[in-house]
Amino acid sequence: MAKEATKIKIIQKGADLIHTGGFNNTGINEILEAASVAKGSFYFYFKSKDDFGMQLIDYYLNYNRAKVEKYLNNPGLSPVQRLKDFFNDYKRYFLKAGCTRGCPFGNLSQEMSDTNETFRKKLQKSFSELESSIKQCLAEAQKAKEISRSLDVEILSNFIINSWEGSLITMKLEKSIEPLNIFEHMVFDVILKV
Amino acid sequence: MAKEATKIKIIQKGADLIHTGGFNNTGINEILEAASVAKGSFYFYFKSKDDFGMQLIDYYLNYNRAKVEKYLNNPGLSPVQRLKDFFNDYKRYFLKAGCTRGCPFGNLSQEMSDTNETFRKKLQKSFSELESSIKQCLAEAQKAKEISRSLDVEILSNFIINSWEGSLITMKLEKSIEPLNIFEHMVFDVILKV
Repeated sequence: MAKEATKIKIIQKGADLIHTGGFNNTGINEILEAASVAKGSFYFYFKSKDDFGMQLIDYYLNYNRAKVEKYLNNPGLSPVQRLKDFFNDYKRYFLKAGCTRGCPFGNLSQEMSDTNETFRKKLQKSFSELESSIKQCLAEAQKAKEISRSLDVEILSNFIINSWEGSLITMKLEKSIEPLNIFEHMVFDVILKV
Repeated sequence: MAKEATKIKIIQKGADLIHTGGFNNTGINEILEAASVAKGSFYFYFKSKDDFGMQLIDYYLNYNRAKVEKYLNNPGLSPVQRLKDFFNDYKRYFLKAGCTRGCPFGNLSQEMSDTNETFRKKLQKSFSELESSIKQCLAEAQKAKEISRSLDVEILSNFIINSWEGSLITMKLEKSIEPLNIFEHMVFDVILKV
């Protein structure tokens, strides 16, 4: 297998393991074994475990960018509907996954923010990118008079993401999709109706 | 030192280390060393690392119960003011802690929910206890006509806790208290004013 293809396979298998077990608690050899790559060859593909972590975050970022493109930037729907579809797509994912895992960005932020500045900065940039997409969509909703001009879209996009991240923790904890239904209800039927 | 006092010391030092480093990633010997307790004596105090984990959660629960008693159950203030004071007390804690650590219940829920049923059930019970206290306070706010009867206090208490947990992740990530200010604004100036 070519170097690049093997690298991608390691990242994908690592993503799988880390999504459940966490970054610090998942060993390099465990990842290589899952990817069927020879033990000890990790540093042929990555400069360090942190370097691997950064490429892992890029992998998640690209996954999310495709969702943003498909749902948040869908020109055929109203801005609020796009936002709803975006979160509903993730809800379907979590339903299929039995309410496990949660958001890899949120998980890594929680795990790494106090102990690894490289991770913290990269994750902060990732969240900020997602926040921009949501803010943009909310600004369009305001322009289209779908939501009130009294709402501050900057504050709102922050709060929506924070609420989403917390709802995913409770989803994992309760092994129930209900927290995501509550999120949807509170955001779309209460807050955006203000 | 008496057995019980040593046990409490181990739990306190363990709480400190786990709050930053996570449960799986904090070793038993590391905890004993921080507590100045002889290496190898862990099983004299605890049946297992999980048993220690359960007592750690009880330790956090008691800490939170005191806050609930002091703020949420304060008969001298209006229900909404009590709720505000409760979250503000934690905000002061996080300001002092330089926006690190986050909520131990949220952290452990995120880390353990998919891999350890003993933790998951105990944490679920803990969150459910906190939710009840908040729901009770919101119901009293409704009775006192401080908030609208159209709000469902069950859904609301869930959403408030979820939003709080997510806001703490972003606080850790951004090393800024702003996400907690946004939480306060959205809950008290927007949602509870519906």
